[in-house]
Amino acid sequence: MRRPAVRHPRTHYEALDRADPLAGVRGAFRLRDGLIYLDGNSLGPVCEPAARAVRRALDEEWAASLIAGWNAHDWIGLPTRLGDRIGRLIGAAPGQVVVCDSISVNLFKLLAFALGLRPGRTRILSTVDNFPTDLYMAQGLQALLGEGRCRLDRVAPESIVDAVDADTAVVMLTQVDFRSGRMLDMRALTRALQAKGALVLWDLAHSAGAVPVDLDGCGADLAVGCGYKYLNGGPGAPAFLYVAARHQAGARQPLSGWMGHARPFAFEAAYRPAAGPAGFLAGTPAILACRALEGALSLWDGIDMAAVRAKSVALTEAFIAEVEASPALASLELLSPRDPALRGSQVALSHPDAHAIVQALIEEDVVGDFREPDVLRFGFTPLYLRHVDVFDAVRRLEAVVGERRHDAERFRVRRAVT
Amino acid sequence: MRRPAVRHPRTHYEALDRADPLAGVRGAFRLRDGLIYLDGNSLGPVCEPAARAVRRALDEEWAASLIAGWNAHDWIGLPTRLGDRIGRLIGAAPGQVVVCDSISVNLFKLLAFALGLRPGRTRILSTVDNFPTDLYMAQGLQALLGEGRCRLDRVAPESIVDAVDADTAVVMLTQVDFRSGRMLDMRALTRALQAKGALVLWDLAHSAGAVPVDLDGCGADLAVGCGYKYLNGGPGAPAFLYVAARHQAGARQPLSGWMGHARPFAFEAAYRPAAGPAGFLAGTPAILACRALEGALSLWDGIDMAAVRAKSVALTEAFIAEVEASPALASLELLSPRDPALRGSQVALSHPDAHAIVQALIEEDVVGDFREPDVLRFGFTPLYLRHVDVFDAVRRLEAVVGERRHDAERFRVRRAVT
Repeated sequence: MRRPAVRHPRTHYEALDRADPLAGVRGAFRLRDGLIYLDGNSLGPVCEPAARAVRRALDEEWAASLIAGWNAHDWIGLPTRLGDRIGRLIGAAPGQVVVCDSISVNLFKLLAFALGLRPGRTRILSTVDNFPTDLYMAQGLQALLGEGRCRLDRVAPESIVDAVDADTAVVMLTQVDFRSGRMLDMRALTRALQAKGALVLWDLAHSAGAVPVDLDGCGADLAVGCGYKYLNGGPGAPAFLYVAARHQAGARQPLSGWMGHARPFAFEAAYRPAAGPAGFLAGTPAILACRALEGALSLWDGIDMAAVRAKSVALTEAFIAEVEASPALASLELLSPRDPALRGSQVALSHPDAHAIVQALIEEDVVGDFREPDVLRFGFTPLYLRHVDVFDAVRRLEAVVGERRHDAERFRVRRAVT
Repeated sequence: MRRPAVRHPRTHYEALDRADPLAGVRGAFRLRDGLIYLDGNSLGPVCEPAARAVRRALDEEWAASLIAGWNAHDWIGLPTRLGDRIGRLIGAAPGQVVVCDSISVNLFKLLAFALGLRPGRTRILSTVDNFPTDLYMAQGLQALLGEGRCRLDRVAPESIVDAVDADTAVVMLTQVDFRSGRMLDMRALTRALQAKGALVLWDLAHSAGAVPVDLDGCGADLAVGCGYKYLNGGPGAPAFLYVAARHQAGARQPLSGWMGHARPFAFEAAYRPAAGPAGFLAGTPAILACRALEGALSLWDGIDMAAVRAKSVALTEAFIAEVEASPALASLELLSPRDPALRGSQVALSHPDAHAIVQALIEEDVVGDFREPDVLRFGFTPLYLRHVDVFDAVRRLEAVVGERRHDAERFRVRRAVT
């Protein structure tokens, strides 16, 4: 990587931390002293409000109220209540987001729903580099419906608009790429793709809580997102989905379970969808998991996504600059866009020994992760990372790479992480 | 209801409790003194191992290991490990059950999978009284595929075998009816339906942990079941599904997310299912919810389902006999089969004032539930109910109905419970 002349001393970053308007949030997270956790883009850490909410759900709700909890604690309303809460972070007015199931399952609902909104069209268009589960779910829908009714095509991100034809029902895009952190222009793409007659389904897995998203403002159609990354809802936290109000009654989603029924407890013989995003629910909501997510979401109250973005850019810019300025790290290549406007809240580097370096770095208490084939991936989460963490992480990375600590035999074993 | 001459004194039930081989399990549950909880068929109560497992997952797993938890605590293996654990309770050898998603979502997977196993056949057959979400999910699949490729027909339970024709791919049956508690003969029906060329998909929502189930012994094809009822996994606990080993590679399930991929972390472009039941996973497993279920399942270690069934029959028989013997309760009709061989672990009564009676009974600390239009439903869960609870519950029911306490104005408001 190229090296500018100037490097900053640690005191420079200490000063930035003193001026950081988000500095007070870090105290809510359980993070060991010394640990620099750069993997919140994969799994966010425990925060006290989440832990408290789970304990309360166990002791004061489930244990004390038993079956009456569905009404007494409004468990039944959790999916839409949490949906509206996430809505604020992604530019969605109330009544368009619901928390449920996994991203995978929600993608299936919305892809099938999109085909229903565009009768006669059969094509799902996506990018070659989209996250695998997005592609797999579309492949599953294609296998179920048959190619005559549903066909997934994948093209390079830069040719996505040109690739839309009169048979394209929906374009499925991930806003921030899980490997490189490359961020697509949601506003411009939504407009351009819609102008060609396609709907757009945005995957916000690496966007929600990481970068400002303005779904309503962009005129977005459909979106899904993740509860366990930047939103810190816990491992396997429920996901969410967004359906623009104008589309909600336009078609039928296929996973039409009783929780999405207009009157679940009337036990009617025929399915009738609930109005609003609740009609996209399938089975019984996972209450303990919803409460963990709710606790974690409470940390976002009063937080301005513009401040989150400003700090995120500062952190990733500092990381890249410090790596570029280090002669010991010259063997690392920047995979992420150099322009912060084109980058989410993560930085990806490549190196032939990426896997071993990530493992060796973990021994130095800097947790990033490895992605095939040669990617070191580092997430920068403004709620709990400090500017000095960036400085310290690069110093430890320098020590690992400069002294070739990653050559040790114990780093040869490959283990998968999510 | 008819009234035999003999009624038993409370001491009779106290003696039964002293001789109860399952009596020791009750202590693990958090149940308030005085409360008689007859709604474990809807939502099981908290047991200490479940609460401990959740606290451990928060404090020692998620907080301490962060992303490394997927390997360090084998979160990634939880769905199949818990599946095998449930398998023991439902007569399924290891490698056929996996814990994931909700019953609704799992029904969709298996209904589509069943159509794939019977190419050319388009019909899903079920009963008119099946649980609504079972029917709704089949309706969702029908709406997605179109009637030419998938059609749900519902018939009376007694004519289900006759109704199978050469176009019937799969028969979807709930073993124990959610309203009446009527239990179908899984062995005889599986054999008769298979003899006519259909697959059988069993819904074990009111069976798993309630009655002995022998899926392998019955030659069952497919099944789904619930984690939050008799298995006590918590509100909205993950569900499970069973696919007989002989079918697992026979078709493709449609919700083909990355967790069901043969190599999830290779990030391959094309979906390839994992071998075994893991191939039926979709998204990331909900770890906190899985841990709660795992803790609750630990209570079943060493417990013989035959002993559970013996006590269940004793409890439901005693309840029915006590109700029948009470002149004050003559206005209540038994909806459940009188023969215990035809009944699951619950008893349903009907009464024009059913809703008000259930509400008034809750004020007497006896929790059952109401089902439209006029059903009082009581679940009998052998792990934590005592024989004296049955005696006391009937006395309190007598007081409510005998003194018409349910006529009070405050019981007129109807509220839904799951």
